[in-house]
Amino acid sequence: MALRASLGTKPGLTGLLSQLSCSAHAAARMSPALVAQRRSSSTSQKVKVDFDQSTGVAVMHMQSPPVNSLSLEFLTDVCIALEKLEMDKSCRGLVVTSSQPKVFSAGLDILDMYGKSPEHCAEFWKAVQEMWLKFYGSDMITIAAVNGSSPAGGCLLSMTCDYRIMADNPRYSIGLNETKLGIVAPFWFKDTMVNTVGHRTTEMALQLGLLYSPAEALKIGLVDQLVREDQVLTTATETMTKWLAIPDHARQLTKSMMRKPTIDKLTSNREADVNNFVKFITKDSIQKSLGMYLEMLKRRKA
Amino acid sequence: MALRASLGTKPGLTGLLSQLSCSAHAAARMSPALVAQRRSSSTSQKVKVDFDQSTGVAVMHMQSPPVNSLSLEFLTDVCIALEKLEMDKSCRGLVVTSSQPKVFSAGLDILDMYGKSPEHCAEFWKAVQEMWLKFYGSDMITIAAVNGSSPAGGCLLSMTCDYRIMADNPRYSIGLNETKLGIVAPFWFKDTMVNTVGHRTTEMALQLGLLYSPAEALKIGLVDQLVREDQVLTTATETMTKWLAIPDHARQLTKSMMRKPTIDKLTSNREADVNNFVKFITKDSIQKSLGMYLEMLKRRKA
Amino acid sequence: MALRASLGTKPGLTGLLSQLSCSAHAAARMSPALVAQRRSSSTSQKVKVDFDQSTGVAVMHMQSPPVNSLSLEFLTDVCIALEKLEMDKSCRGLVVTSSQPKVFSAGLDILDMYGKSPEHCAEFWKAVQEMWLKFYGSDMITIAAVNGSSPAGGCLLSMTCDYRIMADNPRYSIGLNETKLGIVAPFWFKDTMVNTVGHRTTEMALQLGLLYSPAEALKIGLVDQLVREDQVLTTATETMTKWLAIPDHARQLTKSMMRKPTIDKLTSNREADVNNFVKFITKDSIQKSLGMYLEMLKRRKA
Repeated sequence: MALRASLGTKPGLTGLLSQLSCSAHAAARMSPALVAQRRSSSTSQKVKVDFDQSTGVAVMHMQSPPVNSLSLEFLTDVCIALEKLEMDKSCRGLVVTSSQPKVFSAGLDILDMYGKSPEHCAEFWKAVQEMWLKFYGSDMITIAAVNGSSPAGGCLLSMTCDYRIMADNPRYSIGLNETKLGIVAPFWFKDTMVNTVGHRTTEMALQLGLLYSPAEALKIGLVDQLVREDQVLTTATETMTKWLAIPDHARQLTKSMMRKPTIDKLTSNREADVNNFVKFITKDSIQKSLGMYLEMLKRRKA
Repeated sequence: MALRASLGTKPGLTGLLSQLSCSAHAAARMSPALVAQRRSSSTSQKVKVDFDQSTGVAVMHMQSPPVNSLSLEFLTDVCIALEKLEMDKSCRGLVVTSSQPKVFSAGLDILDMYGKSPEHCAEFWKAVQEMWLKFYGSDMITIAAVNGSSPAGGCLLSMTCDYRIMADNPRYSIGLNETKLGIVAPFWFKDTMVNTVGHRTTEMALQLGLLYSPAEALKIGLVDQLVREDQVLTTATETMTKWLAIPDHARQLTKSMMRKPTIDKLTSNREADVNNFVKFITKDSIQKSLGMYLEMLKRRKA
Repeated sequence: MALRASLGTKPGLTGLLSQLSCSAHAAARMSPALVAQRRSSSTSQKVKVDFDQSTGVAVMHMQSPPVNSLSLEFLTDVCIALEKLEMDKSCRGLVVTSSQPKVFSAGLDILDMYGKSPEHCAEFWKAVQEMWLKFYGSDMITIAAVNGSSPAGGCLLSMTCDYRIMADNPRYSIGLNETKLGIVAPFWFKDTMVNTVGHRTTEMALQLGLLYSPAEALKIGLVDQLVREDQVLTTATETMTKWLAIPDHARQLTKSMMRKPTIDKLTSNREADVNNFVKFITKDSIQKSLGMYLEMLKRRKA
């Protein structure tokens, strides 16, 4: 699953900065009062949400340095933010993106599964389940603006969305690469991927822990669209407009019809799935390989 | 679902006429007696069936003006025609096509669900189910000669067939566009589409109510082949020859093995599905949006 | 299913011979003692297994003349060989290939279902099930080096593997062509194909009994890679190296997660499936068409 550091060293900041400065310019064109009126911004330490009431669209910026690893704490913040938006009936669409350079999310935080008590591992896993259940079952239109690498849990998060736009930067990659670390994607990760790219592609991807370049990911249908790095967020906003044209009620019933069987499989097996994870992850052999992996990451950083 | 009028205004007749004149030429080459001997033609007001006993192939021409909307009455005619052919063991293949210009079928007739009693809506829905069950479960080889636009229920009808040939006219479109009208394709529409184009494509198509151009439909596998408009029917006949080369018994068992689980899901839930439809369609909010839609169509006609 | 002779007459030996001579050259570079130490070779009359302990990879050469028809006897040999490798924990990967020219395997041996007692047919079918269960559920990495035509049961065998490399020779073909002989692929053949190429492609392929050229098979995903005929085996070995880089435990759990539901369907229905086969295959009409097919093959040989 996730890896705080393994994401290269070359800077991909240029595109991100120019895009942010674009937003600043656009905002500058409106009067400050109008901005205040139309937008609300709620920020936890690690999740910044901009909600534009005039469009009904929120943007969730993940900002958990360095690489948006999905730790227990971060997952909790993300879920609280999502829940607030879900309960606000004026919020119809959500764009999920990253404020960190070069990475969308590096996936599950290994530090929450290494050297931890079974109780902690269980808490952590429940939070991972909760994130998936809330996003995959969201009534909102959800679009992933994948502006960086997205391995393991990061890939899962993007797959829960209704549409995926990825930065066309060959340095980035996306995929469920769990087996490469000696661990196993659980059945609901697998189900989500089968629903996205089909059975055969999933079988090979999961067995080999494949990470795909943006071009490869587009080809197999793991993402829906590639755009220049500085256009990921604007394209997400434009795409959202098309989705907003569909009556909510009909779209929500349709989305639920497509996803409910997959969601029900986890809902009716949550506890067994937690026990299964805890039993697996606390094994000596698994802890040992996680430890070796963390050592490798440390050496790479140094 | 269906829309009697929303199908453009430019004439697509030229191709259709030249094709009909081709058939006339071919028939002229045989002696009249031979034609009489080999062919039988049964015609209800809205469904014309030509059965060629020498080949074992029937062609069902839908001729319910203006756009082959699937009304209770028309569905009943179609089902009766299909049932007759199904019981005639000498009939091995069926081509379904339209006699109306520019449209294969515009889908379910809104007039059978707007301002009608719950009892009428229930009768109507049973007829829609019956049509799907009979076509999707047919022992015959079924080929859709999609010689015009095919939204909603029209798309469903073509998806029940074993093979789909569409006119390569960019003015035509095909897809399940229910959400655009604020209504929802039921689970068996969805299942049929998943079986045809896979889970992910179906999820996006149904949520957005996408109508595809012929080229797009070919790309995602919603149709199997595109040909010039004046060759749709002849290509269907040629294709049928290949399918007729397969022993019926083996082909029928294979078809049933592929489709039975999907058919069983509706068969064992027909009443609940009817109740669900009636409850949904008689809602004030849904009736209101159907009414607005009909108004819009009237204005467009005028 | 299988057809001992129907595989063309032009020689495809050149490529195969040059490849064998390549292996001989490579072996010549090592000292004989080293070869003896590192490799073990067990050979039944019809199955030759080369196991390289230094890599953990075995190559199973099918050598049942003329066309590796899957007879009761040959299936038993293949299963025994597989079982031995499966129990040897040092064997991590298996390449399956053919020593016969121009054919990978011609599929199930018709002589084991024509003019035989119900008891014999039942024994035969159990062996077919056993082969599928063992290969589809293998803990090893399995790669099919499809160096010739692979109809029916031959196609099934290759689909049980984790990866398929086929010789790019347009004279070869692959597919489940059962309906063309008037027989029906059972549900677990169908399930395996659906897992490989999806529902719609399977439905059409099985109904029409389609045999695909290598290029077509690649396009629909029935095989994963095409290479020159003399490079099928070396490519399989190179590919194996990538798969061996994945920790066994994680890969095996992942493979099992993907395949277990499909395997369980047969495991819990083995007896019914045997009875179903015996009842079908011993029908007069089916025996008659098998007889006609065998006559046709004899005439073609002569």
